[in-house]
Amino acid sequence: MRSAFYISDGTAITAEVFGHALLSLFTVEFKHYTEPFVETEQQAQKVLNKISESFKESGLRPLVFYTIVNTDVRKMIAKSVGINYNFLDQFVAPLEKALGVPSMPEKHRTHSIHEKTYDIRIDAVNYALANDDGSNIKDYHEADIILCGVSRSGKTPTSLYLALQYGIKAANYPFTEEDMGDILKLPAALRRFKKKLFGLTIVPERLHSIRSERRPNSRYASMKQCRMELREVENLYRKEKIPFINSTKFSIEEMSAKILAETGLQRRKY
Amino acid sequence: MRSAFYISDGTAITAEVFGHALLSLFTVEFKHYTEPFVETEQQAQKVLNKISESFKESGLRPLVFYTIVNTDVRKMIAKSVGINYNFLDQFVAPLEKALGVPSMPEKHRTHSIHEKTYDIRIDAVNYALANDDGSNIKDYHEADIILCGVSRSGKTPTSLYLALQYGIKAANYPFTEEDMGDILKLPAALRRFKKKLFGLTIVPERLHSIRSERRPNSRYASMKQCRMELREVENLYRKEKIPFINSTKFSIEEMSAKILAETGLQRRKY
Repeated sequence: MRSAFYISDGTAITAEVFGHALLSLFTVEFKHYTEPFVETEQQAQKVLNKISESFKESGLRPLVFYTIVNTDVRKMIAKSVGINYNFLDQFVAPLEKALGVPSMPEKHRTHSIHEKTYDIRIDAVNYALANDDGSNIKDYHEADIILCGVSRSGKTPTSLYLALQYGIKAANYPFTEEDMGDILKLPAALRRFKKKLFGLTIVPERLHSIRSERRPNSRYASMKQCRMELREVENLYRKEKIPFINSTKFSIEEMSAKILAETGLQRRKY
Repeated sequence: MRSAFYISDGTAITAEVFGHALLSLFTVEFKHYTEPFVETEQQAQKVLNKISESFKESGLRPLVFYTIVNTDVRKMIAKSVGINYNFLDQFVAPLEKALGVPSMPEKHRTHSIHEKTYDIRIDAVNYALANDDGSNIKDYHEADIILCGVSRSGKTPTSLYLALQYGIKAANYPFTEEDMGDILKLPAALRRFKKKLFGLTIVPERLHSIRSERRPNSRYASMKQCRMELREVENLYRKEKIPFINSTKFSIEEMSAKILAETGLQRRKY
């Protein structure tokens, strides 16, 4: 199997994201190696050896995606036996021309700390944790958004992703059987903040399967119960005009991007 | 101010990461617009109008970073009045040649769902939550890694990031004053899993400032207390040969990448 290397003197996240996007266009399988914080010539030599070994083993030239600020290290990696993609570099000259200013590569630390956005994200994560699963309905005035839905419809991972990636304060509220009664009504705690509500739903089969892993053969996991709860929440969303999406076919990234797009919510970190 | 647009018929995360990395090489400020899920010609027209308006307002041609699978939509965006970067495309032909197979652009959904990695990540998030802050020392046998450190040294956001991005099960354990006694010893619950331990530390000034926001003028937040706790944990790390890093100057992404690099821990999602 051919290898793909993602190399950087930073986190290598940019190299990974770019490389994965490109490789996802092909139906070929690759062995992936991420090599972050390659900051010295000695470390670069180690990585070069790894690339050479992988070439020898597989007989296929590894793909090498890299973004490296340090000039000496960059020059070394550029000479690897792999097929080398210094993918940012070829956009720099045209962009310098378009902007009319020179680039400052030494400033390039995309995923490095920026004091301000750092605090914002930590705050948002703490908020999401303190307001997870309806645990703290007192602080909804601070929320940027309140995700609601039945148990195991994807609220918690989505609210944490919104916090970590975008610095958005997302509370989440689970509709429970107590809320349901004869017919699900909007709980008073939520009605005051109706404009912040965003609903999640999911197909009953998937909910049944997720809940069954957690509590096999329970009423909670039964198809009948899943169907009933989902019918109730979807009716509520429609009646109260709460925007909602179906999480079944979407990744956490897609859910979060869709929620931002639909609500127009401004992220605090770019 | 010049605008930068990130456009895709998917999440636009790839366009964002690539565009940000490129723009971070310049000391120019930009206004950022992310336009995900542009899937129809009607939606494309709306985005084109936005680009034109931004050009009119600022007098500066917006930068447009895009990855679009849909051919009609892609052709429309390619004709925007901005400076257009279809940055993946120019790597496709050389890569097809290198791999000897054609690309399958319709498969391109980098941040879309893959049933298996999805479950792995949700599981890991649930694990991190259930094992946050020393709340559940019974399940450490399941942990891929156990982050330890004093209160507010960055354990929780890091463990959640490891779960969400990499599907890694990270527990975290806070050393408390009870653990400290006269001298901090490794708690019995941790000693059994010593090989999984990874320590965090932070400079006292920063810890003092973080804790002061939470509990101003408390003993907990005092410089004296922060210094004492950090001295104790760093002595413990050294004595017990627990690998550790100082979180003060690092972003959550950098911490996580460094932890993976130092431990050799395998991610479950690429």
